[in-house]
Amino acid sequence: MNTATSTATPLRQLGQQARAASRRLRVTSGAARSAVLLALARRIHEQSSWLQEENRRDLDAAIEKGLDAPLVDRLRLSDKALQSMAQGLRQLADMPDPIGSLSATTVRPNGMRVARMRVPLGVIGIIYESRPNVTVDAAALCLKSGNAAILRGGSEAFHSNRALGRLIQQSLQETGLPEHAVQVVETTDRAAVGEMITLTESIDVIIPRGGKGLIARLAAESKIPLIKHLDGNCHLYVDRAARLDQALDIALNAKTYRCGICGAMETLLVHADIANDWLPRAAQRFAEAGVELRACPRALPLLPGSVPATEADWATEYLAPILAVRVVDSLDQALDHIARYSSEHTESIVTQDLAAAERFQREVDSSSVYVNLPTCFADGQEYGLGAEIGISTNRLHARGPVGLEGLTIQKWVLNGDGQLRG
Amino acid sequence: MNTATSTATPLRQLGQQARAASRRLRVTSGAARSAVLLALARRIHEQSSWLQEENRRDLDAAIEKGLDAPLVDRLRLSDKALQSMAQGLRQLADMPDPIGSLSATTVRPNGMRVARMRVPLGVIGIIYESRPNVTVDAAALCLKSGNAAILRGGSEAFHSNRALGRLIQQSLQETGLPEHAVQVVETTDRAAVGEMITLTESIDVIIPRGGKGLIARLAAESKIPLIKHLDGNCHLYVDRAARLDQALDIALNAKTYRCGICGAMETLLVHADIANDWLPRAAQRFAEAGVELRACPRALPLLPGSVPATEADWATEYLAPILAVRVVDSLDQALDHIARYSSEHTESIVTQDLAAAERFQREVDSSSVYVNLPTCFADGQEYGLGAEIGISTNRLHARGPVGLEGLTIQKWVLNGDGQLRG
Repeated sequence: MNTATSTATPLRQLGQQARAASRRLRVTSGAARSAVLLALARRIHEQSSWLQEENRRDLDAAIEKGLDAPLVDRLRLSDKALQSMAQGLRQLADMPDPIGSLSATTVRPNGMRVARMRVPLGVIGIIYESRPNVTVDAAALCLKSGNAAILRGGSEAFHSNRALGRLIQQSLQETGLPEHAVQVVETTDRAAVGEMITLTESIDVIIPRGGKGLIARLAAESKIPLIKHLDGNCHLYVDRAARLDQALDIALNAKTYRCGICGAMETLLVHADIANDWLPRAAQRFAEAGVELRACPRALPLLPGSVPATEADWATEYLAPILAVRVVDSLDQALDHIARYSSEHTESIVTQDLAAAERFQREVDSSSVYVNLPTCFADGQEYGLGAEIGISTNRLHARGPVGLEGLTIQKWVLNGDGQLRG
Repeated sequence: MNTATSTATPLRQLGQQARAASRRLRVTSGAARSAVLLALARRIHEQSSWLQEENRRDLDAAIEKGLDAPLVDRLRLSDKALQSMAQGLRQLADMPDPIGSLSATTVRPNGMRVARMRVPLGVIGIIYESRPNVTVDAAALCLKSGNAAILRGGSEAFHSNRALGRLIQQSLQETGLPEHAVQVVETTDRAAVGEMITLTESIDVIIPRGGKGLIARLAAESKIPLIKHLDGNCHLYVDRAARLDQALDIALNAKTYRCGICGAMETLLVHADIANDWLPRAAQRFAEAGVELRACPRALPLLPGSVPATEADWATEYLAPILAVRVVDSLDQALDHIARYSSEHTESIVTQDLAAAERFQREVDSSSVYVNLPTCFADGQEYGLGAEIGISTNRLHARGPVGLEGLTIQKWVLNGDGQLRG
C-alpha cells in the first residue's frame, strides 16, 4: 500500500503547481468550471467498474487489518455511492456561479462608486480521513468556487482516492482547465500532513475533515488558518412555555435522527416547571429508541432507568445513543449552562414564548441557534447552501455550515472618473 | 518609564477578564455601546489639560532619546488631535449598530426559516506603535461592535496610552458597561507582545498596526489569527486608451497626496503606445513635486532626470517621494507585472476602454482594484465605512479596509415550528 510513496511528487512542488493553477483558474468562466463537474460525473459513471476494482484493494486491506465494519462501510464505493457522487456533481454544476458577483454599489459624495466583487480564496488544502466521497465533493466545491485544491485523504482510501484523482485530472484536461487545479497527494506517508500545514506560500486555508484528534493536532500545529470545528456538544432547551408534544418529537429527532453526526443533541435541558410531567414521557420515548440517559440529581427520579450524570457528561460529545439531562430553574440557568459547556456548534430552544425565543437566539453564542427545531438540522444542504465542505465554529471568516460562499471572499472595486483625494 | 512594569496585571489575567467582559458586552444594547463613546468624548474634552500633561512626559522622553521630529509629532496630543479624537467618537456613536441585524430570510421547502445574525467576534487584541490616537480609535471601534479589546501600544506613548485608558475605564463605569471591556496593557516590557499572541483561549484575533517589521514578526509567531497587511506596493497602470490629462492628475495624486501612506502608488506602468507623449509630461509634473523616478530601459530616455530601475525597485514599497516607472506593451504585460510584484493592496487602471477596465478589475487579485482613480483612496473613510481599524490583504474574513463589519461575523438563526429531519 506504500508503493506510491517513493514516486510521489514532493508537496512543495504540488503547492507551487496549485498556486500557478489558481491564478489561471480564478479568471475562468463559471461555465467552464461547471463543465468540468459534468465531465467528472460522466467519467464516474463510465468508469464505475474500474473505480470499484481500485476501491476493492482498499476494502480488502481494511478487512485484512481488521477494521470495524462501519469503518469498512464508509470506505465502500457502492453503485449507490457512485450515483450519489455523480448526482451531487450535476447539482453543483447547476448552481449559480459564486464568482464575480457584485454587491450593491454605493456612490460616495465625490461621485466615485464603491462595490465588492466575490473572488476565490486561492488554494485550499483538504485533509480528511477515510471517506473517498470527500475527494470528489471537496474537489467539486473548490472548482466551482474557482479555488485550486490539494487533497490529502486517509491512507485507508489510498487506491480509491488515487483513482478518483485520475478521473478529476482527465476531466480537467478534457475541459481545458489547469491540470493542477486539483491534486491528490499520492502518498500514505503521515509526514505529508505535517509538511502540508507549513506551506504558507502555497496554501491559503486548510479544511480538515475527520476525528477530533486529527483536527486538534492540526489546529495546534498548522501555520495556515483552518476552517474547522472540533466538537458538536449540542444542547436542546425545553422551555416552560414549550408545546410538550412538539418538544418530545423535537428532542427524539435531535438525538436519534443519527446519533453520530456533529449536530446530534448531547445534552437536554428542561425547565423545572414542566419537568415532572414531561421528563417521564421523554424517558419512555428515549427508552424505546435505545438511548441511555445520564441525569442530574433532580432529573434522576423522573427518568426511570437513568444513571447519575457526572461533571464530565456535560462536556462530552457522545456521538452515541447516550444523552445527558439536566433540570434548570430558568432560561438564565439554561443560558449559563450552554455558555459554560457548549462547543458553539448548534443549540436550540423549544418554546412558544416570543421573548424567551428572541433572547435565546440573540444570547447563545453558537454558530447556529434554533427555535423549535431539532439540532440535527445543522447541515449546509438543509440550510439551502447546496453542498457543504464542513461546519465551522470559527469566529473569523465563516461560522456554521460552509458552502460555496465560505470558499470565497469579497474584494473592493471602485470606479471613478478622475476623482482626486485631498 | 518602566515604573509600571512591576505593578501591571499579568496578561493571562487580562485575557480572562476580557473574555468574561466579552460575554456581557455582546448582549448589551447598541444605545449603551454608543453612550460609552459619547462619555469618552466628553471626558477627553474635560480632561484635555491632564491628558496633555501625561502626553508631555512621553514627548520629553522622546526628545531626550533623540527621536526624529516626525516621530515626536506622531506622539503629540495637540488640541487639534484631541478634538479630532472626540469628533471621531461622536461620529462613530451615531453610526447604525452593526450587531443583531438579520440578513434576508429564506424559507426552506419544509417551512423552516433560515437567516443570519451579525454578532461580535469576541476579544480583539490590538498591537500598535506609537500613535496614541489608535488607543481611542481602536477601543471605540471594538466597543461599538460589541467586542472586548486588549490594547498594547508602543512604549514611547506609555503615559499617553495609560491616561487615555483611564478615561476609557471611567467611561465604561459611568455607562454601566463591563469595566474590562477595554484594557490597556500597562507595561513597556516587550515580552508582553510575545505573550499576548499566545493567548488563544482569550483572544480571537490580533490586529497589528505599525511597521512592516512588527507585523512580519507577529505573522510568523502568532498563534492567534491576524487581520493585517504587510506591504502596500501599489500599482497604477495608464492604458493606451487613457485620457492623458486625467491620467497625469491621477498619477500625481496617487504618488503625492501623501507618499507615506500604504495606498501611495509605488510603481507606474505605462502602455507603450502613449509612452512617448505622456511620460515626458509626467516627468515634468513629478519633477515639480520633487519625486525621484527610477525607470525601466524604455522609460529612461523619456524621463529626464530619472535613474535606471533595478529588479529590487519593482518589489519596493518606498513610502517616500520615489517612483518606479515601466513601459509595457499590453494590458497583459501590465497584469503579469502586477501579479508578480503586487502586495495585493490596491491597484488602479486609467482607461476609457470598457473591456480593459472590466478585465483589469476582474483579473487583478488585490484587495482593492480601481478604475480611473488614484490608489491613495485606499481608506475606510473614503469607502464610506466610517472609521477603519486597518487594511487587510488577508484572503480570509476581511480583504481591504476593515470597518465595523470586519469586526463582526454572522451566525445562523433558524426558526421552525417542530419540523423534523429525515
